[in-house]
Amino acid sequence: MIIMKSDATQEEIENVIKEISKCGLRADVSKGAYRTVIGLVGDEQKVPFERFAILPGVKEARMIETPYKLISREYAKLSGEESQHRVVKVGNVDIGGSEPVFIAGPCAVESKTQLFRIAEGVKMAGAHILRGGIFKPRTSIHSFQGLGAGGQEEAEEALGWLREAGNRFEMPVVTEIRGEGQVDLVADYVDVIQIGARNMYDQDLLTKVARKGKPILYKRHFGAGIEEFLSFTEYMVAEDNRDIILCERGILPLGKGRNYTRYTLDLAAVPAIQKETYLPVIIDPSHAAGRRDLVFDLSCAGIAVGASGLIIEVHYNPVEALVDGQQMITPDELKDVINACQRVHKAIGPRRNDD
Amino acid sequence: MIIMKSDATQEEIENVIKEISKCGLRADVSKGAYRTVIGLVGDEQKVPFERFAILPGVKEARMIETPYKLISREYAKLSGEESQHRVVKVGNVDIGGSEPVFIAGPCAVESKTQLFRIAEGVKMAGAHILRGGIFKPRTSIHSFQGLGAGGQEEAEEALGWLREAGNRFEMPVVTEIRGEGQVDLVADYVDVIQIGARNMYDQDLLTKVARKGKPILYKRHFGAGIEEFLSFTEYMVAEDNRDIILCERGILPLGKGRNYTRYTLDLAAVPAIQKETYLPVIIDPSHAAGRRDLVFDLSCAGIAVGASGLIIEVHYNPVEALVDGQQMITPDELKDVINACQRVHKAIGPRRNDD
Amino acid sequence: MIIMKSDATQEEIENVIKEISKCGLRADVSKGAYRTVIGLVGDEQKVPFERFAILPGVKEARMIETPYKLISREYAKLSGEESQHRVVKVGNVDIGGSEPVFIAGPCAVESKTQLFRIAEGVKMAGAHILRGGIFKPRTSIHSFQGLGAGGQEEAEEALGWLREAGNRFEMPVVTEIRGEGQVDLVADYVDVIQIGARNMYDQDLLTKVARKGKPILYKRHFGAGIEEFLSFTEYMVAEDNRDIILCERGILPLGKGRNYTRYTLDLAAVPAIQKETYLPVIIDPSHAAGRRDLVFDLSCAGIAVGASGLIIEVHYNPVEALVDGQQMITPDELKDVINACQRVHKAIGPRRNDD
Amino acid sequence: MIIMKSDATQEEIENVIKEISKCGLRADVSKGAYRTVIGLVGDEQKVPFERFAILPGVKEARMIETPYKLISREYAKLSGEESQHRVVKVGNVDIGGSEPVFIAGPCAVESKTQLFRIAEGVKMAGAHILRGGIFKPRTSIHSFQGLGAGGQEEAEEALGWLREAGNRFEMPVVTEIRGEGQVDLVADYVDVIQIGARNMYDQDLLTKVARKGKPILYKRHFGAGIEEFLSFTEYMVAEDNRDIILCERGILPLGKGRNYTRYTLDLAAVPAIQKETYLPVIIDPSHAAGRRDLVFDLSCAGIAVGASGLIIEVHYNPVEALVDGQQMITPDELKDVINACQRVHKAIGPRRNDD
Repeated sequence: MIIMKSDATQEEIENVIKEISKCGLRADVSKGAYRTVIGLVGDEQKVPFERFAILPGVKEARMIETPYKLISREYAKLSGEESQHRVVKVGNVDIGGSEPVFIAGPCAVESKTQLFRIAEGVKMAGAHILRGGIFKPRTSIHSFQGLGAGGQEEAEEALGWLREAGNRFEMPVVTEIRGEGQVDLVADYVDVIQIGARNMYDQDLLTKVARKGKPILYKRHFGAGIEEFLSFTEYMVAEDNRDIILCERGILPLGKGRNYTRYTLDLAAVPAIQKETYLPVIIDPSHAAGRRDLVFDLSCAGIAVGASGLIIEVHYNPVEALVDGQQMITPDELKDVINACQRVHKAIGPRRNDD
Repeated sequence: MIIMKSDATQEEIENVIKEISKCGLRADVSKGAYRTVIGLVGDEQKVPFERFAILPGVKEARMIETPYKLISREYAKLSGEESQHRVVKVGNVDIGGSEPVFIAGPCAVESKTQLFRIAEGVKMAGAHILRGGIFKPRTSIHSFQGLGAGGQEEAEEALGWLREAGNRFEMPVVTEIRGEGQVDLVADYVDVIQIGARNMYDQDLLTKVARKGKPILYKRHFGAGIEEFLSFTEYMVAEDNRDIILCERGILPLGKGRNYTRYTLDLAAVPAIQKETYLPVIIDPSHAAGRRDLVFDLSCAGIAVGASGLIIEVHYNPVEALVDGQQMITPDELKDVINACQRVHKAIGPRRNDD
Repeated sequence: MIIMKSDATQEEIENVIKEISKCGLRADVSKGAYRTVIGLVGDEQKVPFERFAILPGVKEARMIETPYKLISREYAKLSGEESQHRVVKVGNVDIGGSEPVFIAGPCAVESKTQLFRIAEGVKMAGAHILRGGIFKPRTSIHSFQGLGAGGQEEAEEALGWLREAGNRFEMPVVTEIRGEGQVDLVADYVDVIQIGARNMYDQDLLTKVARKGKPILYKRHFGAGIEEFLSFTEYMVAEDNRDIILCERGILPLGKGRNYTRYTLDLAAVPAIQKETYLPVIIDPSHAAGRRDLVFDLSCAGIAVGASGLIIEVHYNPVEALVDGQQMITPDELKDVINACQRVHKAIGPRRNDD
Repeated sequence: MIIMKSDATQEEIENVIKEISKCGLRADVSKGAYRTVIGLVGDEQKVPFERFAILPGVKEARMIETPYKLISREYAKLSGEESQHRVVKVGNVDIGGSEPVFIAGPCAVESKTQLFRIAEGVKMAGAHILRGGIFKPRTSIHSFQGLGAGGQEEAEEALGWLREAGNRFEMPVVTEIRGEGQVDLVADYVDVIQIGARNMYDQDLLTKVARKGKPILYKRHFGAGIEEFLSFTEYMVAEDNRDIILCERGILPLGKGRNYTRYTLDLAAVPAIQKETYLPVIIDPSHAAGRRDLVFDLSCAGIAVGASGLIIEVHYNPVEALVDGQQMITPDELKDVINACQRVHKAIGPRRNDD
C-alpha cells in the first residue's frame, strides 16, 4: 500500500502507478478527501517497498499482511473517505442503507406462470428484489438443473421471463451464474449477478463477473472461514467493482446424529464482517435452515444481528416445487416475516457500532 | 413407552411399573389430564413389548426409536399435558415464561469486593440472576482455575460470598461444577447448578447433579450435535428432574484462516430444540463471541430467534479480569443490551410456533 | 437405469436411447459381457420408468436413489464387466494397477532451470509423473499466482517447459487448471489435467474438462463429504470420460488451539471410496500436512491404506520456493519416501477387498 | 519453569520448591543427567519469575507460553534425559518400545463365557493386552450401558472376569471408567485404566485417575484439537504419572451427505503428537471407522504412520454383540491384521524422526 502525501501532485501519483505497473502489479487508486492511497493488486513479494518509499510525493509505502485490503475499513479510512458504509444501489433499492432489503422469489424458475404468480406474491408481501434460479448448481447430475440446462434458447427464454416479471412488478432481479459461459448472457438480463456458495473459490469466475460492472450478490462457501470469504471478495474489488453484497447462508453442520438444520447459520459473521469491511452483508435463512418452519425465527435474528437484508425462497405451493420445496415459505408467510423484521429493525434503532 | 388406557386403575399402573422393574429398567410415570404414559429408562432391548401390550390396563406398548423421549414434546403430548412449555422456576424468576430472563455476572469470582461490585452493577442494569465462576474448567493447568482450586475452605468462602451477594441484591445465583466431588458442596449454596460445555457428555456427573433436585443450567458441548445434546439431557430427566435450562454457547468454528469469533453461535439451534422439547433454551453470547464488541448484536439475535434468556459475562473493568476479560462487558453496556433485547422481544410478539 | 435383456437387439437398444433423449436426458450405454445397461444422465424425475419397463428388449427400468451411479461398482457389476478396477493409462504409466504411482514436482513452476533441475531430481528418485503448477489458485490476490498469471504468452512458455521436461525425463506431465479459459490451452500441453480442491464443485468446469477426453486428476474439496465428491465426479463420467484419478488432500481441521497440520488427511476415505467406485484414488500428503516433516509418515500411511499412488511436492531448495516451501521435500527425501512406500506395498501384498 | 545450575545443591533445589509452594503452585521436579528442571503446576500468573531468577542455584526462570510443558519434548530435553521416548510398561508389555502393541477384545463384556472365548481368540491371534468394556458411555440412556450399570455387585463380578481372563491368557487388562465413582473400584482390578473420548475434558476425573499411579489409556475427544488433547494430558502428568498412552480414535466427520465412516481418523495426529511429546500414541481403527471392512486398511495405515500400537474391537460373532457389532472383527481377521501390521512395521524400519 502506498500512501501519498496530501499535497502530492497528479503527476507524482501517475508516476507511482507506472512504477507499480513495471513490477507486474496493478494499482488501485483511492482518492479520498484528505489524501490518495494506492493499493497494489498482485504479488507484493515482487515490490521493492523501500524504493517506493522515496519516490516523490510518497508519504509511506508498506506491505499489508492481511490477505485482503482493498475491501478493508482500514484502507477506506486511510484515504479519508467520509462514509465507511458502502450502499449498493440496485435500481431504486439501496442495499446497506438505513432500511433492510428483502429479496424473494422461487428457488428455481419453472415456468412463466409460476414465476409471475410468485413475483406478484412477493411484491405484495413487501419484497424489494426478485430472485429466481435458472442455472441451478446441483450436487447430483441426476437432479433438475434449472431451465438453463435446456440450452441457450431455453435459458434466454427463462431469463426473459425474469426480466419481464421484474419490470412488471417493479423489482430489480437477481439470478445465479454457475460457470464462465453464462456471464455474458446473464448480465444482459439481470440487475444483480449472484455467485453461489459452491463457486465462492472460483477466482477466474469472480474476475469475469466483476468486470461486467454490475452489482454482485456473493455467497460464502459452507466450508469457508470469514478470512477466506473476504480474501476472495478482494478478487472482485480488484477489478474496481465495489458493488458487492456479501451473503451468509450457513456453514457445515457439526456433531453426531441427525441434523436439525441443513447448515449452521453463522449469524455472528454479520457483525464480524461489518467490522472488517464497508460492504453490506445479508442473510439467506432458507438455505441455512433447509426447513420452512425456522425461516421466521432466523429472519428476525438476521435483522437483529445487523444484516442489511435477507434473501428468502418463496413459492405459493412449496410441495409442488421442483427444487428445495421443504424450505420455501408462501407469500403470506413472507409478509409476516417482513413485517416482523421491520419491527425488530425499528426496535433496535441505530447501532453503537455504526458510529 | 407404555400408554395406559384412560380408565386404567392405579393397581394396573403399579403392576406395569413392577414388570418394568423386573426387566432391569426404571419407569418414568407421567400422569396427564387424559391418561398415564409410562416411559422406560434403560436398555429397551431387554423389554418384551408384545408381552406388555397385553397387560391389564395397557393401551399400547412400543419402542421409541429416538435416543431421547422423556424430554420430547411428543411424550408430553401423549399424556395430554395442557402446556407444552416448561417454566423453570428459580426463586421468583420464571425461565421459559413470557419474558426473557437475563443472567449476568463475572466469569470468575475473584474477591468479595469484586463480586459485590459487579452484582450491584448487573442488578441495576436489570439482570434477574447472578452468575459467578468458582470452579473454572480450563484447558491449561497453568491458568487460573478459580478460587475453588484453593481447597475446600477457600471454595466455601467464595460460595458464601455468592450466596450473600444473591441475597443482598435479591437475585438467585448460579455457579458451575466441574466434577462429582463438588456437587454436594455447591448444591448447598446456589439456586441453579451449571454443568458446562466440557462436562456435557459426563453422564455420571449428570445423574449425580440431577438427583439434587435443583434447577440445572446445562450447556451444549462445542462439538455436540443437537441430538446428542438432547440425548444426554435425558440422563437428568430420567432422574425425575425436569428443571433443566438448556444453553447454546457456540460450536467449533470452521474454515481456514484466523477466527473472527471464538466459537460459532448456532442460533438456529434455539427454535430447532424448541420444536423437539418443552425445556427452555437460553443463549450465551459471551463465550460464543469471545469478544465484547459482538455481545450486543448476538444478544439481540438470541432474543429475536426465540431464546428464553441470555447469560452474559460482566465486569466493571474487563481488562483487569483474571479470566476472559476480552469478552466481558460493563454493567452500563449490559443495560443497553437488556433494554434492546426487551424492545426486540416486544416487537416480535407472540410467535406462531408458540401455538 | 435401464437394464436390457441379454438377447436385446441393437435396434431395441437404440430405441431406448431415442426414448431417453425425448425425455430430455442423455443415455450412458455400458455394454458388458452379459448385457447392456443404460444409465440416464439428467433429471430422472422426468422419466416415466413404468413406460420404459415395457419397451421391447428391456429387462428392468428403475430410478437410482444415490446421487451417483455411473461411477458406482454396482453399475459396473450390472453390465457384467469383468474387472471392477479402472486402470487409468497415462503414457506408459498405469494408475490403479498393481503398483503404486508417484507423481512429484514443484508446487509452482518458477523458471525453466528450476523446473528441469527438479524434474531430473524426481526422476532419479523414482517418480513416474511430473507435476508443476502454472495457474495457482490462491486465497489472496496479493500472493504469487503462478506464471500463468502473466498472460497468454508467459503461460504458454511455462506450459512448453513442462512439456519439454516431461519429454526429456520421460515422464507424463500434469498441471492444474483453475478456470474455463485455461482448458483448451492446457489440454494442448499436458497428459493429465488437474482440477484442484477449490474447483471441485464447479460443474461447468468439470464438464468442459471432461470433454477434452484426457485423464483428469480430481481433488476432493476440503469441506466436501465423500458423497459430494463422488456425485460431482459423476458430472465428468457423464461426458463419457472414465479416466478420472480421485485425490484426497485433506479436509478442514477441527478443534481449538493451533493446528499441527494444515488439513486433516482423511485416509479412511481411500478404502471407503474404493468400496463405492472402480476409479483409482491417490493421496496428496504435502498439502494435507503443510509441513515437510510429516510427508514421509503420511506417504507410508497412504500406501498402507491402499492408495494407488501419491502426489508430492518437491524442490531442491524448499526455503527459496515462491509457494508452499514449508511443505516441500528434496529429491533425496523423495527417494526415501518412494523406497519406503514400495516396501510397505510389498509387505501388505494383495488385499482382501481386492477380491 | 525453573532451570537449576548444574552444580545446584539439594538444599537450593528444596528452597526453590518451598518458594513455589508459597505462591500457591506445585513443583514438578525433573532430575536429569545434567541438571534439574523444576516445572510449575498451577497458575503461572502468580509467580514473580524475576525474583526466582536470583535465588541461589537458579540458572534461569521463565514463563512457558504453551498450555502444556511437563509432557513436552523440550522440557525433557532441558533436564538432559537420555531417552526422549517414554516406554509405558504394562506387565511385561512395553508400549512405546521398538515393537507395535496390539490391544484387543470385545467392545462390551456381556458374560464370562463371551469374554473368555474372545480372550482366547485374541491371544491366539497375537494380541498383547485384553480390553473389555464394563462401564459403557452411551449417547442414549435407552441403550445397553454395560454390566457396570447393574450395580456394584454386578460390576465387581464383571471386573473379576476380566482380571481372571487376563491371568488365564497371560495378558494385562484394560477397561474404561466413566465417572469418579468408578475409579477406586476399577483400579483394583485392571492394569490400565482407560479414559474415553467423552471424558477427555473432565479434569477432575483425570486428576483422580492419575493419582492411582497406574498406566492410563487416554483417548482424544472427537471435537478436540491436538493442543487441547495435550493440554489436558498435562493434568495427569502434573500428578506425577507419566504412564500415559495417548489414543487417536477419530474426530467428527465433515461434509454433506451420508458418512462413509463414523469418524474421521486423524492419522497425521500420530507423528504430529510424537514431535511434541515423549508419550506413546496408539490408534483405535474400530471406533473411527464404525465398520469392520475398513479395520484392516486403517490398522496398516496406523502402524505405517508410526503409531506404537492399536486397540481393536473383536467378537467371535459380531452380529450378536450388544454394542457396536458393525465395527468388530473376528479373531481370525485380527490375526491377519496383526500379521500385516508387523510386516508393515518391519518394512518401514527405524524412522528418521526417531533420531
